[in-house]
Amino acid sequence: MGPGPSDIHPRVLEALSRPTVGHLDPYYLRIMDELQSMLREVFCTKNRMTMAISGTGSAGQEATVLNLVEPGDRVLVCVNGVFGGRLADMAERAGGEVSKIERPWGEVFELREIEDALARIRPKVVAIVLAETSTGAWQPMNEICAPIHESGALLILDTVTALGGIPVELDAWHVDAAYSGTQKCLSCPPGLAPVSFSDRAVEKILKRREKVRSWYLDVSLIANYWGGDRVYHHTAPINMTYALHEALRLVLEEGLVECLVRHRLNHRALKAGLAALGIGYATQEGHQLYQLNAVRIPDGVDDATVRRALLERFGIEIGAGLGAFKGKVWRIGLMGYASRQSNALLLLAALEQLLAEQGYEFSHGAGVAAANKVYAAGC
Amino acid sequence: MGPGPSDIHPRVLEALSRPTVGHLDPYYLRIMDELQSMLREVFCTKNRMTMAISGTGSAGQEATVLNLVEPGDRVLVCVNGVFGGRLADMAERAGGEVSKIERPWGEVFELREIEDALARIRPKVVAIVLAETSTGAWQPMNEICAPIHESGALLILDTVTALGGIPVELDAWHVDAAYSGTQKCLSCPPGLAPVSFSDRAVEKILKRREKVRSWYLDVSLIANYWGGDRVYHHTAPINMTYALHEALRLVLEEGLVECLVRHRLNHRALKAGLAALGIGYATQEGHQLYQLNAVRIPDGVDDATVRRALLERFGIEIGAGLGAFKGKVWRIGLMGYASRQSNALLLLAALEQLLAEQGYEFSHGAGVAAANKVYAAGC
Repeated sequence: MGPGPSDIHPRVLEALSRPTVGHLDPYYLRIMDELQSMLREVFCTKNRMTMAISGTGSAGQEATVLNLVEPGDRVLVCVNGVFGGRLADMAERAGGEVSKIERPWGEVFELREIEDALARIRPKVVAIVLAETSTGAWQPMNEICAPIHESGALLILDTVTALGGIPVELDAWHVDAAYSGTQKCLSCPPGLAPVSFSDRAVEKILKRREKVRSWYLDVSLIANYWGGDRVYHHTAPINMTYALHEALRLVLEEGLVECLVRHRLNHRALKAGLAALGIGYATQEGHQLYQLNAVRIPDGVDDATVRRALLERFGIEIGAGLGAFKGKVWRIGLMGYASRQSNALLLLAALEQLLAEQGYEFSHGAGVAAANKVYAAGC
Repeated sequence: MGPGPSDIHPRVLEALSRPTVGHLDPYYLRIMDELQSMLREVFCTKNRMTMAISGTGSAGQEATVLNLVEPGDRVLVCVNGVFGGRLADMAERAGGEVSKIERPWGEVFELREIEDALARIRPKVVAIVLAETSTGAWQPMNEICAPIHESGALLILDTVTALGGIPVELDAWHVDAAYSGTQKCLSCPPGLAPVSFSDRAVEKILKRREKVRSWYLDVSLIANYWGGDRVYHHTAPINMTYALHEALRLVLEEGLVECLVRHRLNHRALKAGLAALGIGYATQEGHQLYQLNAVRIPDGVDDATVRRALLERFGIEIGAGLGAFKGKVWRIGLMGYASRQSNALLLLAALEQLLAEQGYEFSHGAGVAAANKVYAAGC
């Protein structure tokens, strides 16, 4: 129940340990095709160039940046947490002229700020994070996507923690390059990075004046293997592909909408339970992620003691705060297979016990009761 | 029995499917420490910066190049197959001024050629492949390593197919950066890249004037996670780390020397069996890898038909030729767990049946008999 890796579904662990076949074996090629098709469904896109990069989410992140940014390109990066900052670092390494706009940790960007920055900077590429894992902030995309698209800039969207937990609508939002991870709401171990590139992005990549600064992450080469030609690029991480394939099957068997609704319910129950214990969110109201709950550690409660006791006595991992939130915030994940009623209730019950040991005062049993009320209502 | 991924040991598949813990979980940190220590044993090195890059072998390859090569550095790349060519491509993307020396496919470099190139080019970095997977060629290092080291150049060594199959002696050869893959002689699925950097390499990396062109592959950042500080870089591929840990345990349980001797024995048996069928090697005599046997397809025998029948009727994958060897060569792997007497004998027996169907004339039973003679002698 940390910020990821989250709990892995047993069917995914089983798939992971299937015998390894060759990367050009007909069986494996079918798995790849199915994986691409399922990824398109989950990303809500028709993008042909939708596949998995052979690395963790950060490899997917850098793949979008290195391929879309050419040396000298003006890049606008929206920073309101760790992962926005990382996008800026990557864009600089790609040779981009990077301009940042910033929001305090836990807040999101508004339409006006984006429009101002577009007018002022006239970027070729804009990068923003949909679900900021370091702060629990959920960036609304419906309004800001149109002016970015109309400006002619290419839009890079971080969906690492988002995918499978909140709506991700690549085509509706005119996203040109999105990346995700497997170890958040897809209930799969880390090791692959789903990515998707729009036709507009592909056009820019094919017209690059200079080679991409990484051979391993050059998507025009990688796409020749995932596409019809099967040109050898590198040996794919076969077993991780089995696992992601099974993880996507699980999401679609449950139904993408049903999966998101489940994440919402467990979030609401946890939030109600924490509120009853007097624990509030560090994230702007109205923009709190279902799957990553960044909450303020109550005064007088020791961060490390509680986290260690949760792990050692209850087998529950929750995340520490990063950067500006270090020592002040816990990050509680309800992601994928871990987004379950039993998890939310157990955490609340365990927390009640540990908070009482720390001398923190609250109405005993109130957390679990409040959560159960949400579950009884079913929404 | 292709050029990799090779057969996975059952214990490694079991390790792969263990429950995923967090990347800062005390259990996981212990696994990482043990993995580093075992990797040093297998690489025959004391290098502190010895770890696994979160990607396949090619990611490790690019990590060594991107970190050691600064824009404008003169780089000497020795090319005698696909993977040398790839090193040159990567070095160019890193901003290096690349000079290549070449040998025909299947041949290796001699001391004189290396000395001449060092004097002529005066490179800051030299890159060479120990075990060329595309040709089966085994580059001797004992002689050429000294003049490279004495010239002051940093030496990058490709040990993807080598590690665990033939001797790899990083310290004795003064190697400054080596990379490998998990899916060859370590009997582990693809998905991690063991790497090791000498102190001299680390010194250069820390003194770089310009940031490494990839954030994901920046080893000075990655080493802060693998080292004592455990600074978060990216979410490690937890389950792949379990698998590599188990794979290294298997090599050391058998004994590194015993493991190499086993690879040699199965190679010699296969070679004797193939010779009895009139099938010779495409690789220079005296420089043929134990684990990757590149052999000439006999005249009149159809490449694709035989490979397809091996897969469909016997469940055996062997590799096609790449590049200059396309349609002319088969690449037969005897790697790691797949380097077994039963595999060598079954392949010879199956091949006899398929060659007979193709109208190829040979003394029936001769292949298996010749191989068995080697096994009876035990060397």
